[in-house]
Amino acid sequence: MKYEPIYYGEYLKLDKILGAQNLMSEKYGKPAHDETLFIIIHQTYELWFKQILHEVDSIHALFSKEVLAPTSLSTISHRLNRITEIQRILNDQLNVIETMSPLDFMEFRDYLVPASGFQSIQFRMIELKLGLRQEYRLHADKAFFNSRLKEEDKEFMLKLEEDTTLLELIDKWLSRLPFGKKENFDFWEHYQETVEEMLAADAEIIKNNKTLNPKQIEFELNNLNATRETFSVLFDAEKYAQLQEKGEVRISREAKLALIFIKLFKDEPILQMPNQILDQLIDIDELFTTWRYRHAIMAHRMLGRKIGTGGSSGHDYLKQSTENNRVFTDLFNVATFLIPKSTVPQLPDEIKKDLSFSYE
Amino acid sequence: MKYEPIYYGEYLKLDKILGAQNLMSEKYGKPAHDETLFIIIHQTYELWFKQILHEVDSIHALFSKEVLAPTSLSTISHRLNRITEIQRILNDQLNVIETMSPLDFMEFRDYLVPASGFQSIQFRMIELKLGLRQEYRLHADKAFFNSRLKEEDKEFMLKLEEDTTLLELIDKWLSRLPFGKKENFDFWEHYQETVEEMLAADAEIIKNNKTLNPKQIEFELNNLNATRETFSVLFDAEKYAQLQEKGEVRISREAKLALIFIKLFKDEPILQMPNQILDQLIDIDELFTTWRYRHAIMAHRMLGRKIGTGGSSGHDYLKQSTENNRVFTDLFNVATFLIPKSTVPQLPDEIKKDLSFSYE
Amino acid sequence: MKYEPIYYGEYLKLDKILGAQNLMSEKYGKPAHDETLFIIIHQTYELWFKQILHEVDSIHALFSKEVLAPTSLSTISHRLNRITEIQRILNDQLNVIETMSPLDFMEFRDYLVPASGFQSIQFRMIELKLGLRQEYRLHADKAFFNSRLKEEDKEFMLKLEEDTTLLELIDKWLSRLPFGKKENFDFWEHYQETVEEMLAADAEIIKNNKTLNPKQIEFELNNLNATRETFSVLFDAEKYAQLQEKGEVRISREAKLALIFIKLFKDEPILQMPNQILDQLIDIDELFTTWRYRHAIMAHRMLGRKIGTGGSSGHDYLKQSTENNRVFTDLFNVATFLIPKSTVPQLPDEIKKDLSFSYE
Amino acid sequence: MKYEPIYYGEYLKLDKILGAQNLMSEKYGKPAHDETLFIIIHQTYELWFKQILHEVDSIHALFSKEVLAPTSLSTISHRLNRITEIQRILNDQLNVIETMSPLDFMEFRDYLVPASGFQSIQFRMIELKLGLRQEYRLHADKAFFNSRLKEEDKEFMLKLEEDTTLLELIDKWLSRLPFGKKENFDFWEHYQETVEEMLAADAEIIKNNKTLNPKQIEFELNNLNATRETFSVLFDAEKYAQLQEKGEVRISREAKLALIFIKLFKDEPILQMPNQILDQLIDIDELFTTWRYRHAIMAHRMLGRKIGTGGSSGHDYLKQSTENNRVFTDLFNVATFLIPKSTVPQLPDEIKKDLSFSYE
Repeated sequence: MKYEPIYYGEYLKLDKILGAQNLMSEKYGKPAHDETLFIIIHQTYELWFKQILHEVDSIHALFSKEVLAPTSLSTISHRLNRITEIQRILNDQLNVIETMSPLDFMEFRDYLVPASGFQSIQFRMIELKLGLRQEYRLHADKAFFNSRLKEEDKEFMLKLEEDTTLLELIDKWLSRLPFGKKENFDFWEHYQETVEEMLAADAEIIKNNKTLNPKQIEFELNNLNATRETFSVLFDAEKYAQLQEKGEVRISREAKLALIFIKLFKDEPILQMPNQILDQLIDIDELFTTWRYRHAIMAHRMLGRKIGTGGSSGHDYLKQSTENNRVFTDLFNVATFLIPKSTVPQLPDEIKKDLSFSYE
Repeated sequence: MKYEPIYYGEYLKLDKILGAQNLMSEKYGKPAHDETLFIIIHQTYELWFKQILHEVDSIHALFSKEVLAPTSLSTISHRLNRITEIQRILNDQLNVIETMSPLDFMEFRDYLVPASGFQSIQFRMIELKLGLRQEYRLHADKAFFNSRLKEEDKEFMLKLEEDTTLLELIDKWLSRLPFGKKENFDFWEHYQETVEEMLAADAEIIKNNKTLNPKQIEFELNNLNATRETFSVLFDAEKYAQLQEKGEVRISREAKLALIFIKLFKDEPILQMPNQILDQLIDIDELFTTWRYRHAIMAHRMLGRKIGTGGSSGHDYLKQSTENNRVFTDLFNVATFLIPKSTVPQLPDEIKKDLSFSYE
Repeated sequence: MKYEPIYYGEYLKLDKILGAQNLMSEKYGKPAHDETLFIIIHQTYELWFKQILHEVDSIHALFSKEVLAPTSLSTISHRLNRITEIQRILNDQLNVIETMSPLDFMEFRDYLVPASGFQSIQFRMIELKLGLRQEYRLHADKAFFNSRLKEEDKEFMLKLEEDTTLLELIDKWLSRLPFGKKENFDFWEHYQETVEEMLAADAEIIKNNKTLNPKQIEFELNNLNATRETFSVLFDAEKYAQLQEKGEVRISREAKLALIFIKLFKDEPILQMPNQILDQLIDIDELFTTWRYRHAIMAHRMLGRKIGTGGSSGHDYLKQSTENNRVFTDLFNVATFLIPKSTVPQLPDEIKKDLSFSYE
Repeated sequence: MKYEPIYYGEYLKLDKILGAQNLMSEKYGKPAHDETLFIIIHQTYELWFKQILHEVDSIHALFSKEVLAPTSLSTISHRLNRITEIQRILNDQLNVIETMSPLDFMEFRDYLVPASGFQSIQFRMIELKLGLRQEYRLHADKAFFNSRLKEEDKEFMLKLEEDTTLLELIDKWLSRLPFGKKENFDFWEHYQETVEEMLAADAEIIKNNKTLNPKQIEFELNNLNATRETFSVLFDAEKYAQLQEKGEVRISREAKLALIFIKLFKDEPILQMPNQILDQLIDIDELFTTWRYRHAIMAHRMLGRKIGTGGSSGHDYLKQSTENNRVFTDLFNVATFLIPKSTVPQLPDEIKKDLSFSYE
């Protein structure tokens, strides 16, 4: 053997892992069968959170380079995919905790006050590292942050706020992508033109539609104007800045345009992996929001309308945070700005070449 | 052979099934690869809806008997379990539809107007048969019902409103359960007493808690009063009726009490299956609400902030209906009214015997 | 507060849990990104194994009572169901480990020799406690037991062989069930008669089938004789004993008959839960055998035809053990002995009453 | 509206789809509740098979081009991923069919003879199009092909044997990849050298290992020789041809080398998608083999040791075919030929450039 032999149980530190289930119900002399499950399932969650953080940190590091190495694209995509596979497990594990009945939970619930899932520092770290800054959180969540976290945990989390988030790194990476413009060609001018032509043609069709009465025509034209307004933001730095200020968009206008460009030309070699990466970020957001939603339902089932061990009215709070805590909504919203493939302006050969492999 | 021989493809009518994918994009001369997926996945959904209806109808029939046959309990539970296994598939199928990108969807989306999932009569039938009467629906949903459904479908659905729903059948079944009272014993009197004692003891603990300041004590006592108020509804027919009128509870007070009784004594032989059935109804509600939530997220991803093919602003509508369209919230809320096993009043032997098997 | 306040991280011993990932690749100076995943996923497996053991032990305890308390039936069923929900997670976690590529695994694989999953004492405990005694294992597995386990682990496992397994407890429980016979009625006499009548009628049909030629008729009659032979074992204690000796059946003839009885009358109140429990044991066996199969495929994918870290030629060994290590095949095989519901002999009222609830 | 309005139910041809469930048990006057499930689940399987064929055909078409367009890589990968998501559903649907008990199945099973899943032409098409030629099938399967399929189905399938399979298209594509060699550089010479050095070094370590006795040393050296022999096949066209003839490998030596090259340099831009595509083919094989295994177990559970409706002894046949019918084992086996990243010979800049994006 080249290396010291090692035994399975020692390698995995099973003495520590399997010796870390101390039932409070035992401590207070009334052992509750299901407390073991309650502890173990939370411990598996925390182990998976550690793994997710390990992947997120490595992705941060790759995106933090001044220029993202092309060879990193597959690594990033591979690790994002791993995160989503883990998240599928996190979601399915809710089926296991739901084998605990409310009455079984009541046998040890009082011993756990005021411990609460809100105190999971690792989960907060994941949220923050992805992009959920303190400022984006619900008021209730901020209040809770102050009242329920240990001083050292608070400081640790506040310190972490100084780092760049993945959302911000993605923003910068997208903003840097150079492909939309070339000396004599600005894709976005053509795109704007095409959008306007499309909307004008649609207006004609509506006006000439004999099956509609004047009121219906007015309604449809109003709809069309709303769409025009939506698109106009793309092409108008000032309007865009206003939306940013209102918090309706979080990424920069340059990043937004690059996002659309990638979606429109996703099969060009240099954009294949970036497009896949963007889809995976959407997957991650979707899987976490689904997890939050199911978590809220589970709390409702377990506690009815009672307040949670952390002192908050669990079910309602969880439901609000479900939607609020999404991070990559800008990526979801990109669908709003796409036009049919057949109408997309052609790219000049020069740009096409920039998007290709070197080998021909 | 005792019976006519039969061939796989003919038995399954595969000519019909596999000949039912007519692409609109082909009709209009621009075949879109992903329209096949779009059609097929909706067809599998409809097949599963048919299966769910088949199970729901058979369960309705069993519950509709004047006295529910004890031998039916396992059949009902078995079929409810089948429904939840199907629902797990329905939810997971969203992973398949999400392999379609927004741009791929745009290649055939315009051809489908105004078709919409809202027009799935089978899904509406499931919702209604479970208990989601027209009166419980969102305003937007009722408006849509009028504007987007065919006349014959509307009539069909309105006719169906005349039938008893599963929620109502469950209500009746629970109300009929005779186990809480016996000539000289009323379980609920004892229960009320116990609850009051518990709350009084808690109040003492709060008042004597030296670590709390007067303001905190007041806060905790207010919480306790809220709990007392919540419980009081159980024991006061008039208060209960008010909540029913406001729509905050849908089942009768008798049913609610039976529900709590079953939860408290779920291991008594005659209550084992009923308890399991109640849990399965909760599962069904949970799986449908999760499906609705994921459906809303999927629509967001596919359409951004655009309006859906059915003319509604898909994402937002779907998100509202997610919570609104839950049917068995009364079952979820039962957790609110439970007390720890160790404090539950004892049943007299007479009642215990009524809850047992005949064989000893 | 009635109890000492407790903080989330301390309750879950997160310092221990999250401090138990020591990378060998770091120890040897070449940190491998994916070793973290490798450790963490195995730790989650071990945590779930602990939970499964917790449930299995509690089920053992309930079955070990001289008479199984009727109120225990729902608890047993509930906990078996929890085990299957956990097993679904165990199986799905293979999707996570498969995000590791063979090349990534090679970066730290050599450091782990000779650690191996075969050394998971908890998994061996689960197998044994369910019923997989040393004598039923593959030769390769026994050899491995001797060569690769630590002395103390070997002793521990051999000591555990002295306990009764769940399969044996189930056998005893089934053998004790009194329902098939009553003073003047022996269900099995009637069952045997019915089976013989059925087979005789089938023989007539075959002989008179004009569409078959003599050779085909002979073939079909031979098939029928094989079926007759199969059934005959049920009614002949000696023949049954021979099969037991050959290891083709593991449970007693009394248990086998009770098993069939439960399946045939599964909706009678007193048999509803027992029937469900038997199905859950089948589920557990199925989920573990699926896990073993997928594990074998995963090893093939990760290692090709190389030998595993434990020194065995992983893929092939794993595939053999997949089928060999099943525990509840007797429960699977019960389907062989069932006859159509419509032909099942009627039970006398006396027995029917024994199978009912006391309340009417 | 630009297009004819269309209604949900008509678009999906729900009259056909939902009118295609004709129960045999009804035809023979004894309606069986579960036959509906049996039909519907098979119909959903067939719908999904149609979708898989749609994807497989489109992937065939892209691979059949003389030169695979670089822009096709993402499309191929995307559609392979869709297939695996569908396969996850196919596997999970087994949980639904398993809610049918053996006794419930017996209520209509006899009416279905000799229909059998073996007669699913679409599933056979998928198998063949992936690469499972008639010659690779089990003897029992070929016999069944002749005895149980309709004449027209047989002819159709035999005709299809004339087409190139995906495995063969992949073989050709891999063989064409030009990256391993350049005028003055042959990667494989360096690779062979490295492998030999590694093995020589390992031999030294073994010989000098003081903790081993002579017999153990001999054993370890024999193992090493086996590894040397395995690798030698790669570098020796004649030996390789012999393995091909014996059927132990199916793809060409050129393809095998390209496969290894892709795995070793998977992060080079031009190899990122090809590597992902190869992993997805492995996923597909794994998901189908898992499906076959679970199908075999399900048959055991439903039928015990009885013979299937198609006349075959279902469970055993299915278990044999589980392993036999795998298509991409050559891709699994590639792990056998990899060496640690740190020891892989460096590529010259010229080749590195060929593997890059054009844009710098």
